[in-house]
Amino acid sequence: MLKDNYIMAFFTFAGINLVLATCAGALCAYIAPAAAGSGIPEVKAYLNGIDAHSILAPSTLFVKILGSILGVAAGFVVGKEGPMVHTGACIANLLGQGGSKKYHLTWKWLRFFKNDRDRRDLITCGAAAGVAAAFRAPVGGVLFALEEVASWWRSALLWRTFFTTAVVAVVLRSLIEFCRSGNCGLFGEGGLIMFDINSTIPDYNMVDLLAVTLIGVVGGIFGSLYNYLVDKVLRTYSRVNEKGPNYRVILVIIISLLTSCCAFGIPWFTTCVPCPIGLDADQCSTVDRSGNYKRFHCPPNHYNDLASLILNTNDDAIRSLYSSVNENEFRTSTLLVFFLAMFTLGVITYGIAIPSGLFIPVILAGASYGRLVGTLLTSVSNLDVGLFALLGAASFLGGTMRMTVSLCIILLELTNNLLMLPLMMLVLLISKSVADNFNKGVYDQIVRMKGLPFLEPHAEPYMRQLVAGDVVSGPLISFSGVEKVSNIIHSLRLTSHNGFPVVDEPPFIEAPELCGVVLRSHLITLLKGKIFTKDKRLTGNETLRRFTATDFAKAGLGKGPKLEDLDILPTEMDMYVDLHPITNTSPYTVVETMSLAKAAVAFRELGLRHLCVVPKTPGRPPIVGILTRHDFMSEHILGLYPGIDEHK
Amino acid sequence: MLKDNYIMAFFTFAGINLVLATCAGALCAYIAPAAAGSGIPEVKAYLNGIDAHSILAPSTLFVKILGSILGVAAGFVVGKEGPMVHTGACIANLLGQGGSKKYHLTWKWLRFFKNDRDRRDLITCGAAAGVAAAFRAPVGGVLFALEEVASWWRSALLWRTFFTTAVVAVVLRSLIEFCRSGNCGLFGEGGLIMFDINSTIPDYNMVDLLAVTLIGVVGGIFGSLYNYLVDKVLRTYSRVNEKGPNYRVILVIIISLLTSCCAFGIPWFTTCVPCPIGLDADQCSTVDRSGNYKRFHCPPNHYNDLASLILNTNDDAIRSLYSSVNENEFRTSTLLVFFLAMFTLGVITYGIAIPSGLFIPVILAGASYGRLVGTLLTSVSNLDVGLFALLGAASFLGGTMRMTVSLCIILLELTNNLLMLPLMMLVLLISKSVADNFNKGVYDQIVRMKGLPFLEPHAEPYMRQLVAGDVVSGPLISFSGVEKVSNIIHSLRLTSHNGFPVVDEPPFIEAPELCGVVLRSHLITLLKGKIFTKDKRLTGNETLRRFTATDFAKAGLGKGPKLEDLDILPTEMDMYVDLHPITNTSPYTVVETMSLAKAAVAFRELGLRHLCVVPKTPGRPPIVGILTRHDFMSEHILGLYPGIDEHK
Repeated sequence: MLKDNYIMAFFTFAGINLVLATCAGALCAYIAPAAAGSGIPEVKAYLNGIDAHSILAPSTLFVKILGSILGVAAGFVVGKEGPMVHTGACIANLLGQGGSKKYHLTWKWLRFFKNDRDRRDLITCGAAAGVAAAFRAPVGGVLFALEEVASWWRSALLWRTFFTTAVVAVVLRSLIEFCRSGNCGLFGEGGLIMFDINSTIPDYNMVDLLAVTLIGVVGGIFGSLYNYLVDKVLRTYSRVNEKGPNYRVILVIIISLLTSCCAFGIPWFTTCVPCPIGLDADQCSTVDRSGNYKRFHCPPNHYNDLASLILNTNDDAIRSLYSSVNENEFRTSTLLVFFLAMFTLGVITYGIAIPSGLFIPVILAGASYGRLVGTLLTSVSNLDVGLFALLGAASFLGGTMRMTVSLCIILLELTNNLLMLPLMMLVLLISKSVADNFNKGVYDQIVRMKGLPFLEPHAEPYMRQLVAGDVVSGPLISFSGVEKVSNIIHSLRLTSHNGFPVVDEPPFIEAPELCGVVLRSHLITLLKGKIFTKDKRLTGNETLRRFTATDFAKAGLGKGPKLEDLDILPTEMDMYVDLHPITNTSPYTVVETMSLAKAAVAFRELGLRHLCVVPKTPGRPPIVGILTRHDFMSEHILGLYPGIDEHK
Repeated sequence: MLKDNYIMAFFTFAGINLVLATCAGALCAYIAPAAAGSGIPEVKAYLNGIDAHSILAPSTLFVKILGSILGVAAGFVVGKEGPMVHTGACIANLLGQGGSKKYHLTWKWLRFFKNDRDRRDLITCGAAAGVAAAFRAPVGGVLFALEEVASWWRSALLWRTFFTTAVVAVVLRSLIEFCRSGNCGLFGEGGLIMFDINSTIPDYNMVDLLAVTLIGVVGGIFGSLYNYLVDKVLRTYSRVNEKGPNYRVILVIIISLLTSCCAFGIPWFTTCVPCPIGLDADQCSTVDRSGNYKRFHCPPNHYNDLASLILNTNDDAIRSLYSSVNENEFRTSTLLVFFLAMFTLGVITYGIAIPSGLFIPVILAGASYGRLVGTLLTSVSNLDVGLFALLGAASFLGGTMRMTVSLCIILLELTNNLLMLPLMMLVLLISKSVADNFNKGVYDQIVRMKGLPFLEPHAEPYMRQLVAGDVVSGPLISFSGVEKVSNIIHSLRLTSHNGFPVVDEPPFIEAPELCGVVLRSHLITLLKGKIFTKDKRLTGNETLRRFTATDFAKAGLGKGPKLEDLDILPTEMDMYVDLHPITNTSPYTVVETMSLAKAAVAFRELGLRHLCVVPKTPGRPPIVGILTRHDFMSEHILGLYPGIDEHK
């Protein structure tokens, strides 16, 4: 072949990548910016109780699916796992809000999901299904959803996610069965177990355990370094991304060109390796199809080992790294270069405007690192290089994502090697423990970087020095049991609060007394019904007759009744409306002198959105304020009390 | 051989069984009655917050270990899994209370566990370690502990149990390695995977899925029947057991004789089967050692297939049932008889005074049932009989224990057959769903039968019709902030309450006000310190100087300071003591008009022992009462309101 041909090839390769990448970037930048990135942090935040409309919108779903396909096809070092979790959650949300009215897809029976709890469960199931489908790991999906994604556990949830992933497993298996004849392209390759390495029976001793410990420690350090770099890169990119969608697309184009240059350029500088004896030309030294031994620029019967990794699909590269058929398939230098390339490209790719998972880059970097260590230790260790690659991947995953049980099961289901379990558990624990000393898990970091008000499962230490009354912000707006319409409209316009206390006042009662809490959406629905009276009068019965429970059911994200839609006549403004029928008369309350830490625990454990703070001493208004999620954020508290010792 | 020899053999067999059984029964009946049974329900109840002293006492530990060994050796149809969970929990408890003072085993650094939460975590880890060791299933142990045993989840708990079982896995593996040469008897047989059936690659179609569904449905029905019968038998036995330890031992003797008769007698009536061709005499038709083909009363080169199952160790019987090497090893009639024998013996054995697990009987009955179905369906199904046996075991386990993810992982780790996962998930889900229509899981049933006040994870429907004030029981005893010693002593003697409200009263404050809650054990410790004053005076500083936090640390189960140990002089009785330093001033409170269902959720989710009920209207005493675990029990509520509709 001539040199010109290679230049032509490079331009074709880079050109196709560029077109695909630009499409993915444009979709993300112009249609649904929320579809960029992994999606797991966003789903995690939603399940923590953060209702951000765009996270699970139908447009995000559309862009996520298409963008993820385009992004992976464009040769980026990105995974499809995170996007699949997000896709699963989006579909679940679409079902949970009774379909999409905009696109005329609605089912009536889905109305049962019109409440916070069932919708949360449904979306957890969706996330589990995403992992189950991505890794073909049904049990791993359940555990991932419960360990990493969900904020509240219920035993019913365990059962439901398990059911979902069982269905995923059966459907997957049927499709693989259907595709066995090879008419679905690469789909179904590897069967239900993607990287089967069951053939090798590990037999390890003390030296191996030491090697494994070392892998875990180093993997933990690299993992936390990865998190640190991803955080830095994300902050840099977000400054570019803020400038507008055009800048986002340009960033995608730059990274795409860089990736193409790396993928095509680096193998150029490596030397060729003769094919192993015993393999015929059909298996080794391939040019134009999927296979493990890529010929690239080498003479016949030789292959380029770096090209075999870097110019292959991600799945095939991982499979080659885990494989222990040919121990010398990859040279040390190749593995080192590949590791550095994957680590760097993985770090700089996450954060551009395409759907991009983190699992695959981390597994690629980890597996090449593990195989590198294995190759170096061949003389002292019994374990083969494929197992080292697996352990390396485990150590990187543990170091970046900080999960234990779910990663263990996912890796087990990916590789079907149960006898490796003790070593895998060890590596995961070590790398997680090491990395936890440096920073937080990558998903938690991203959630924090995006400024989402995520409620941690435990109270911060400094909260013990404060009481609930210290952080309640005022001035408080509260309504009477029977309130003037104009007051309600005015208050709803004035603030963006979602919950308002209702206080019963004379003449209905002797002294003012806390009746309960009303929600903004319920108030608007009630006002729409226009059951108004000229004087202060209880009209509960009529309200109950006119409305049904479904009128007050929680609407889809960003779909609730809006204040602007209300059409109140000026004469009606001076009339009264009875709030009692829509008041939650059993709100959870804490006394103002309650330790803030305990209030935080109650808020988190009970999954609240509003927590009423009542006064300790009598003779004051019956409510001091309402604590919301934002009042427990450390930025808010440390802003109020800058002198407090954060770690005491 | 002569007939006399067989009679001799029977008496020797039954005699040895009887001696072992009597020893086990006597240990249980005279030393530690709490060691009888599985132990999982008790551990579950403890982790739900029920402090019953004897459950985790050192004597229980001792009897549980020894009794379990004797019981399994005596040939009972009992498992070792439940007892191992209990053993793990007992050891964890021993560590958690800082060792045992009675047996002079104490460590000072263990004082960090002297609080409810860390002790609960430690015992959860112990239970996980028990399952991990029993099934050699480290991940299964984690999931079992979290799905079935623990009542409260925390992500830290997941990590901790995972660490514990990783250690178990490493230790187990080292021991198996050490025992490979065969110098530990049967230990270590099967390696880390007890019943490896990985060799068969399942290939299933629509008919198989139907068969699997059928297995699940029937397994669910049988499982719930098993639960129903176990419950009936337990209630009958408990009437016998109440009469005294001698009766308990007699019951053990009767069941032991019955078991021996069954085991030796039933194979007598079956016909012999010729050895399969290709097996030499060393493998088939064995008499005096462990092996799959027992000769029993058959001529040479023949074996008795029923004896091969029933006169074998439980582990070997299960392994034979799962094995697919010889499809015709067991005849249909043999499997039917074995199934009936195991089902009946399993039901009548649980509840006698020996440590007895439920897993093995259920797996034995389920596996024989599954293999029976498999043998009947050989002509229509592709799946082999060993896989059917596995699915049958799964269906029975799902039907009795109602777990999903953990059973799935345990079975996976027992058999190392990842490709069976979709079918196994299906069977577990179907059998659980079917059985849930009839009754509760077996462990929940036992907890309820024992009358333990177990808090369900969800509120009952009828609780929505009541408010917190409806179930608070009076008259209420409360203390002043500075209280007379005699009043405290009197109140402590009068009631067995563990928590008392403290109300600040004039002259220290204008109007009476709820200060907080004090615990009985803290009161006794404070009184021991004798910081008394002649007049009502605040002595907080002195108290803080004299006591340290560890003085008030939670003592071991049943080990707290006792009221009888107090030595208060008559002159001191009229003096005052300041309760402020030991008062928890941030108790969780609910208003008396709070929905009982919401109060129950708060009580359960926050893991409370006392929940203060405060009045809605001012001008009354500042506390209405304290809700405890007993106030949420359905017996209590339905006793107070017999007319209420339970299901509405």
